[in-house]
Amino acid sequence: MIDRLMDKIDQLKNPAVVGLDPLYEMIPSMIREEMLERYGKTAKAAAKMFLHFNQEIIDHVYDLVPAVKLQIAMYEQYGIEGLAAYMETAAYAKEKGLIVIGDIKRGDIASTAAAYAAHLAGVEIEGIRIDPWNEDAVTLNPYLGFDSIEPFIEPCNKYDKGIFVLVKTSNPSGKELQDLAADGLPVYEHAARFVAKWGELAMGARGYSRVGAVVGATYKEQGEELRKKMPQTFFLIPGYGAQGATADDIRGFFDRDGRGCIVNSSRGIIAAYKKDKRFGEHNFADAARDAAILMKKDLEGIMK
Amino acid sequence: MIDRLMDKIDQLKNPAVVGLDPLYEMIPSMIREEMLERYGKTAKAAAKMFLHFNQEIIDHVYDLVPAVKLQIAMYEQYGIEGLAAYMETAAYAKEKGLIVIGDIKRGDIASTAAAYAAHLAGVEIEGIRIDPWNEDAVTLNPYLGFDSIEPFIEPCNKYDKGIFVLVKTSNPSGKELQDLAADGLPVYEHAARFVAKWGELAMGARGYSRVGAVVGATYKEQGEELRKKMPQTFFLIPGYGAQGATADDIRGFFDRDGRGCIVNSSRGIIAAYKKDKRFGEHNFADAARDAAILMKKDLEGIMK
Repeated sequence: MIDRLMDKIDQLKNPAVVGLDPLYEMIPSMIREEMLERYGKTAKAAAKMFLHFNQEIIDHVYDLVPAVKLQIAMYEQYGIEGLAAYMETAAYAKEKGLIVIGDIKRGDIASTAAAYAAHLAGVEIEGIRIDPWNEDAVTLNPYLGFDSIEPFIEPCNKYDKGIFVLVKTSNPSGKELQDLAADGLPVYEHAARFVAKWGELAMGARGYSRVGAVVGATYKEQGEELRKKMPQTFFLIPGYGAQGATADDIRGFFDRDGRGCIVNSSRGIIAAYKKDKRFGEHNFADAARDAAILMKKDLEGIMK
Repeated sequence: MIDRLMDKIDQLKNPAVVGLDPLYEMIPSMIREEMLERYGKTAKAAAKMFLHFNQEIIDHVYDLVPAVKLQIAMYEQYGIEGLAAYMETAAYAKEKGLIVIGDIKRGDIASTAAAYAAHLAGVEIEGIRIDPWNEDAVTLNPYLGFDSIEPFIEPCNKYDKGIFVLVKTSNPSGKELQDLAADGLPVYEHAARFVAKWGELAMGARGYSRVGAVVGATYKEQGEELRKKMPQTFFLIPGYGAQGATADDIRGFFDRDGRGCIVNSSRGIIAAYKKDKRFGEHNFADAARDAAILMKKDLEGIMK
């Protein structure tokens, strides 16, 4: 997937990823009312709202961006129904040619990680392989070390999938553990070294590994430093837009050719209609497209 | 839930938790064949196998142990159908009076953590609160720091729920990041300090907090050290049994009164029939009960 992703970024001249992380209060009233009428005040109603909302946004951005990222928590909170909307959104995005990143941040001991790896590998039942999740890549947490990551390496290579391992997260208290200094290096740099090493097990053809890293846009110097230290590691950058970072903050996260990163914006795109009053809620998907075009322009200077 | 859990442990004189982490190959052939016949080679068949398997085990251990722990990955790998079996197992265990721990190891930025907190708080739709997950407690990952934990504190207090935050995991490569020395202390001890501090926000009535820690049985000295440093933190101990640790390894994880821990065994209980040939697969649940009784006896010397 890393080569396909890089090809798509080149073709569209856009490293932006739309984060399909809907909140209930983002859903325009006409969609909300329709689903409440059909399904009552139920998890199914909320799930159908999210799916409809996502589909309209996908319809309006799929020709602009290479990928979407789905934050699974937003769906998981509504249980089975919510997760069905997650899967249907992923399938819909795939149909439209988008690469689908599942932001799941899982991490567990080897035997459990092997089960989580079904997100990429699917699962076999009496010789029949099914792939319930439909993701091209997922995010993972490094706290449990290599044996929590290893079961994902084979599916990365076998099915051309990818992983992005948390290195430096964008949130304020990420630094509590990640910035502790161990042997003169912050913990996240140790994580970075591990991720770079693991990445050698799953290299793509264009110089980057299928094992990428999550590096928050909100830490400019650290991101620039990590790029130097991890020349083969593709970055998934959260924290752009609503979390405060701009193109200038992340320029140095990219390599000399203006490659090596994708940049996620969630609220900044999908809830754009709430900020930009020219559109109104009926045109929430047009507002999302407009915001995606602005983001593309903002990042254009970085792409060569 | 921490006081309820402690009361149940006292009443049953047993700090053992049965880990309902089924693998496809653990399912006895008669259950497998029945479900394949009914549902074909589908995720639904596998999910129904797990549910049936779990229910029989619950029926055979609910009077012996205070709690069950469900490793969500085992279910999640089968998608929606698998997760439905997770929820139905949780509901069934609750009906039988067991405390249900969801081993989910989630961890994300504040706004996302607020969505994951639905595992404990449920979710509101137009003023109607639904609780799809039915868990009494969940496990969490500390890599993102306090803002990834904070959204769980309020539901802990408001709905009498609990969390167990990873501190020192039982797996071999857990040490890669967790044992790095920062300011003379391994990273997991820093995590332990944070967890102890966060725990003050959610104290129960019996001296322990609703914010507990996961401390692997496979690290004897470290667990004993952590007990001294975290006198108000309840430990969830994985790694007993199949992962190699015995009662002697974890004696020092308990407090002076023989309290302060629950000890999980998964394969050692639920797949006991595969090791102990006296039973045979038809009597897998009897074998599980027998193994649970042996585990209780093994831990008896610790409880005062």
